[in-house]
Amino acid sequence: MSEFSFEVTHVCKQSGARTGILHTPHGDVLTPMFMPVGTLATVKFVSPEEITDMNAGVILANTYHLWLRPGEDIVKEAGGLHKFMNVNNPILTDSGGFQVFSLMENRKITEEGVHFKNHLNGDKLFLSPEKAIQIQNDLGADIIMSFDECPPYPSTHAYMKDSVERTLRWAKRGKDAHQNDKQALFGIVQGGEFEDLRAYSAQELVKMDFPGYSIGGTSVGESKETMYKMIDYAIQYLPFEKPRYLMGVGSTDAILEGVLRGVDMFDCVLPTRIARHGTLMTSTGRLNIRNAKNERDFGPIDVECDCYTCKNYSRAYLRHLIRCNEGLGMRLLSIHNLRFLIKLTEEVRLAIQEDRFTDFKEAYFKKHKLNSVDSRGF
Amino acid sequence: MSEFSFEVTHVCKQSGARTGILHTPHGDVLTPMFMPVGTLATVKFVSPEEITDMNAGVILANTYHLWLRPGEDIVKEAGGLHKFMNVNNPILTDSGGFQVFSLMENRKITEEGVHFKNHLNGDKLFLSPEKAIQIQNDLGADIIMSFDECPPYPSTHAYMKDSVERTLRWAKRGKDAHQNDKQALFGIVQGGEFEDLRAYSAQELVKMDFPGYSIGGTSVGESKETMYKMIDYAIQYLPFEKPRYLMGVGSTDAILEGVLRGVDMFDCVLPTRIARHGTLMTSTGRLNIRNAKNERDFGPIDVECDCYTCKNYSRAYLRHLIRCNEGLGMRLLSIHNLRFLIKLTEEVRLAIQEDRFTDFKEAYFKKHKLNSVDSRGF
Repeated sequence: MSEFSFEVTHVCKQSGARTGILHTPHGDVLTPMFMPVGTLATVKFVSPEEITDMNAGVILANTYHLWLRPGEDIVKEAGGLHKFMNVNNPILTDSGGFQVFSLMENRKITEEGVHFKNHLNGDKLFLSPEKAIQIQNDLGADIIMSFDECPPYPSTHAYMKDSVERTLRWAKRGKDAHQNDKQALFGIVQGGEFEDLRAYSAQELVKMDFPGYSIGGTSVGESKETMYKMIDYAIQYLPFEKPRYLMGVGSTDAILEGVLRGVDMFDCVLPTRIARHGTLMTSTGRLNIRNAKNERDFGPIDVECDCYTCKNYSRAYLRHLIRCNEGLGMRLLSIHNLRFLIKLTEEVRLAIQEDRFTDFKEAYFKKHKLNSVDSRGF
Repeated sequence: MSEFSFEVTHVCKQSGARTGILHTPHGDVLTPMFMPVGTLATVKFVSPEEITDMNAGVILANTYHLWLRPGEDIVKEAGGLHKFMNVNNPILTDSGGFQVFSLMENRKITEEGVHFKNHLNGDKLFLSPEKAIQIQNDLGADIIMSFDECPPYPSTHAYMKDSVERTLRWAKRGKDAHQNDKQALFGIVQGGEFEDLRAYSAQELVKMDFPGYSIGGTSVGESKETMYKMIDYAIQYLPFEKPRYLMGVGSTDAILEGVLRGVDMFDCVLPTRIARHGTLMTSTGRLNIRNAKNERDFGPIDVECDCYTCKNYSRAYLRHLIRCNEGLGMRLLSIHNLRFLIKLTEEVRLAIQEDRFTDFKEAYFKKHKLNSVDSRGF
């Protein structure tokens, strides 16, 4: 019996959006959910206790990066990622597919898998569906991903069709290779902006009966409008009772549009990456802490925020730390941005439970001057 | 009535070393004490809560660096360093003198003060005894320092004599300029390795009646043996009932030798600086976490350590973080090294209270193969 399951707890009468609970070997977490990214087995600068304090649910780690450093064998020997990182949150690992296709030059795709070069030292590497599962089995995350191709954008319909077919064969091979029931293996819907291919990809994956489904390839250069269409194309074929994860997407507008369409899980490196450069998400919009107007501002980043940083530090101090390239500054700003998105999902869940998510979304878009076509919330 | 005072609580019957309590506007702290350095108003990577958890007493900040960034006017407007940093520990600021003489090229010393160039942008700057006090008054630390010259090593007796005389005149000017009784202004004994000049410097400062005395210029390139002589030369002329601060010294052997000679306060950037590069202080000696032998070591840095890092993380994980240049790694290693030295001072205080400090020091030196002449403990 798998320790992983999902239940939808409420469907918003106003919008059709849903709340749910993911049951995992490392506890229950609520959806919709934003998942902080801990690429190299650390959410950069942030401790496990700080991750708990910000009320994070699942956190992410990247299979490709951990395969190279420290190596999945070491993580396995440590007792898995949770023990290695000293983290009690459920963890999700990606398959390495996205990094192989976004970080690598000169990759060569074969039916068997992908040949490419290590981005650190140029060594030849090979990743296959079976290898991606083996690495993820050794890492020991609660939720793991099928190995998929993330085709470039734009791709022709003919290329994308071949790619989708191959990714489906890879999904089947990965499923066959995955032989424990402690880790939930998700299938990944691809198909680019082609409605028929998204439908086909989703339908074929559903036949294989995964415990959850990811929607990939939506954030690779397309417009927001196209992204939302791709979600719509896929999600109508995904079973109501299984969790849906929109990969690599975490801007505020895309989270709200995704939730409206029935997405349960989101992740993005953006909040932590921009934080390290001094850019903050606030209830009144984007804020660059380096701006001179913050020099003598002894108030918090955001008066509406309840994060550790906003409760304890002033804009003037944070500006000083970031200008001096201090690690404490990067840490405090990362905590703020992550809490900002997690708090947004808390508000989203409440709005769904109270059958007013459409109102909530519209008010949020109006306040932040967002739209459903081309805006990029943060 | 000053809010600052010092009391000697015990003199070790075996060694003559002493314990004490510093009473400050931000609470009482115990001596002998190691003080973490927070150059730019942050102990790099470490939060105020972590500083509290490691049982730190006073923490340091650097006047020169804060003068340039963010500027003492901004810190003053924030309500002083404690509020700016969100720190409740007592704070000590140096005078800027050490940085002026160690960081700067082309400095020009006049009776009035020192002309030099900003190390960040080359702008012309001028620091005088009065300016150093004004900046420190604005920063608002509990303990502040007189502006002094730190002459290069070696210097001739003639040069050093002139320098000591000038530094004494600067100490007097600084004392006259310092007009609040919330901050305790310490005088700084200089005089290089010349016994007569150390004696003269100490005696003249004592005539001015400072609430505490620093011993400067002992760590600038000299041998340990010379350093201990310089401490001996100075300390015999310093009043028993006032605190003594050995500036910029924090290796384990120098702390124990200093305590033996009656020093109450120590500081050093070494533990945090080496931590950021992966070097750790442990009960069994120096450890480079990058070493391959730590790759699959799932035990703590130091089984005898009670720090947050040792309680929660393995050498294998910390090695991985440091190899990947992760901020969390620098944070966790900094916490360990600071706690290591603070724990040492806790053991020192206990040994003094129990009249066995000579035994303690000898056992420590034997265990770590240290000597009183040329060893460099960590």
